[in-house]
Amino acid sequence: MRSKLFVPGGRPELFDKALAGPADALSFDLEDSVPAEAKTRARDDVAAFVASPAMRQAAKLAIVRVNAPDTSWFEDDLRAVVVPGLALLNVPKLESADEVRAVVAALERVESDGARETPVGLLVNVETPRGLEHAAAMAVAHPRVAGLQLGLADLFEPHGIDRGDAAAVHAAMFAVKMAAAAAGVFAVDAAFAAIDDADGYRAEARMSRRLGFIGKSCIHPRQVAFANEVFAPTPEDIVHARRVVAAAAEAARMGHGAFALDGRMIDLPFVKRAEALLASLG
Amino acid sequence: MRSKLFVPGGRPELFDKALAGPADALSFDLEDSVPAEAKTRARDDVAAFVASPAMRQAAKLAIVRVNAPDTSWFEDDLRAVVVPGLALLNVPKLESADEVRAVVAALERVESDGARETPVGLLVNVETPRGLEHAAAMAVAHPRVAGLQLGLADLFEPHGIDRGDAAAVHAAMFAVKMAAAAAGVFAVDAAFAAIDDADGYRAEARMSRRLGFIGKSCIHPRQVAFANEVFAPTPEDIVHARRVVAAAAEAARMGHGAFALDGRMIDLPFVKRAEALLASLG
Amino acid sequence: MRSKLFVPGGRPELFDKALAGPADALSFDLEDSVPAEAKTRARDDVAAFVASPAMRQAAKLAIVRVNAPDTSWFEDDLRAVVVPGLALLNVPKLESADEVRAVVAALERVESDGARETPVGLLVNVETPRGLEHAAAMAVAHPRVAGLQLGLADLFEPHGIDRGDAAAVHAAMFAVKMAAAAAGVFAVDAAFAAIDDADGYRAEARMSRRLGFIGKSCIHPRQVAFANEVFAPTPEDIVHARRVVAAAAEAARMGHGAFALDGRMIDLPFVKRAEALLASLG
Repeated sequence: MRSKLFVPGGRPELFDKALAGPADALSFDLEDSVPAEAKTRARDDVAAFVASPAMRQAAKLAIVRVNAPDTSWFEDDLRAVVVPGLALLNVPKLESADEVRAVVAALERVESDGARETPVGLLVNVETPRGLEHAAAMAVAHPRVAGLQLGLADLFEPHGIDRGDAAAVHAAMFAVKMAAAAAGVFAVDAAFAAIDDADGYRAEARMSRRLGFIGKSCIHPRQVAFANEVFAPTPEDIVHARRVVAAAAEAARMGHGAFALDGRMIDLPFVKRAEALLASLG
Repeated sequence: MRSKLFVPGGRPELFDKALAGPADALSFDLEDSVPAEAKTRARDDVAAFVASPAMRQAAKLAIVRVNAPDTSWFEDDLRAVVVPGLALLNVPKLESADEVRAVVAALERVESDGARETPVGLLVNVETPRGLEHAAAMAVAHPRVAGLQLGLADLFEPHGIDRGDAAAVHAAMFAVKMAAAAAGVFAVDAAFAAIDDADGYRAEARMSRRLGFIGKSCIHPRQVAFANEVFAPTPEDIVHARRVVAAAAEAARMGHGAFALDGRMIDLPFVKRAEALLASLG
Repeated sequence: MRSKLFVPGGRPELFDKALAGPADALSFDLEDSVPAEAKTRARDDVAAFVASPAMRQAAKLAIVRVNAPDTSWFEDDLRAVVVPGLALLNVPKLESADEVRAVVAALERVESDGARETPVGLLVNVETPRGLEHAAAMAVAHPRVAGLQLGLADLFEPHGIDRGDAAAVHAAMFAVKMAAAAAGVFAVDAAFAAIDDADGYRAEARMSRRLGFIGKSCIHPRQVAFANEVFAPTPEDIVHARRVVAAAAEAARMGHGAFALDGRMIDLPFVKRAEALLASLG
């Protein structure tokens, strides 16, 4: 999931275009972009689209961001959007392991209502200071948690933290990635509001890529190409990974656990990374 | 509280000058700057000044840094300085939520001794590695906690950490700000010992301002102007905040939750920040 | 311990040369560098060398990295290498305080088997995201813990984090140092795989030195000189520390707790650091 495109749930006229575009995942939003009076209609439009043959046949993940668990819309959102075709349920404003488990319980109530096949995974937003504090606990709270989604605007703006402070962005990314890695789940990078600033988007995407994030949110279709470009493994990465794995096999045959490759000591952790990269190519 | 001027409690000849100066807050010190044999006298001088009409009528916060709770001076310090006029009690070397609650209990014992009006708030120093580890727990330990005060000299120097390592300073600031934000309390930046280094002071103040700190400690009166300058909202900030709030009202009227302003997607978190900035102007 | 040289336990022909070299500590490895079929032999060779008169008479610390506690080799490793002459037992892949205490229990069982003099200290590796999360808890888990060893390859590579991301390296160092400082134990910096990149090694060593680490791991003998050079106190450091201590004594005589030296306010934390530096000179 290199690119995760934000699609406002209240604007169904945009859905087909989003589906036709190059984003790896579509994230239909029922939360901040949808005013209170439009919630019900947006919920139904999104549910219908996620379950549609066009969406289900596309090589794209369908994600829905529902309203927060402490709102009156949450349970109805779940009842509507947990349909075949939904890959990940994205839940905003979670701040503790208990809250994650409460979401799983609500999800299981909805699922037992009807007959649904594969269990839906949770994409847990980390977007408040308290959420960041408990990110590691949330990531291991339940096997349903598939990944952590960093949210920088909510994390920074209401507390007067400059969204443009690259070191603060890095610190938040590092904390979220460590929490995700400790739980063995993936991490997805935040949205970037300045839709005309391609260089800024790419710079932030490169930062999160170096930190092991698998992709970045896109608030506008034009950001999708940047994300796809930055998070794709380079040909050099692939060649290097193949050489590491081959050299590791050779070293094992010689009875060595560590070996030098291009003047660099290579041992188990490097081999694991190379294997993971090759596995991600499918 | 853009500027918080350190005033050595053992030097009462400096009090009037500090009061006449431009600092937003005066922090009278009874701890490190006062040798053991001068503690009693300093305590009485500070208590008298904090309670004086001149101090109480000034548009300045009165803060007293007492000796640490594990010293023999602590309880007597509290008994003396918790007087009308005291805005914040600054307590050094706290390292856990239990220690914060013990301070509150001591404070409440002192307050019940006499009749005092508004409850005094706590400004909790985060200035040891253990304190940093438990900063989030200390910030939520009791509603009396009004803010966290970063202390970098104590945090770094005894452990061989270079006070001039900007990335380490940033990391400590970020941790303290996240702890404060999770609790909904403010954060105040550390002192800066190189009193002749105006550029260094300003650079550090700008760093903490970007991280949402409300002000910075001043170890010397000449640093006060720098803090006041760096932490004041700029005219551009104010104009931008007014435009965000106006555009949000307009978007709400149109039924949109998110909108573009100057090529930037604006949604709830940005609106909240703008509202907070305008509210801080009074 | 400015330099800690990694010595592959399966290559005894390297032991004498390592002993003759300038490293402050030798860390004999029984883990990643030794393939399964060579574990028993490496264990015996290392144990014999650590207990040898040559090693015991050298002004060098002997450290052994054993296999992880969840492997079948662990208990036998302990039984073999806990000999007179062993200064620190280095244990990989620990992730919680309970695991640290289990290692201490295993160590105590081995020690009670025979008569050994001074208790061996633990050097706890912090080299997984979960280990980093619990680094502070591990450092205080038992008085036997003497220090924390950062491991960056294992922490970063399997999770797709770029080992060359200096800000990520700094963040991991800062977290480990804070955990160590909170417990009052030392921190040792990670290995650096690019053995031909002297500038890269020095840059990383300088970074960890600024963060209060006492030394850095060396994966190759040629890195030892770099570590010894970077972690030695400079003549200027020593002169400055002597001046701070002298000025503090003078200020105390005058009844001041804080004083200015070269335009810098000096109080207790600075004095403590200066005293620690002078004490480290022996």
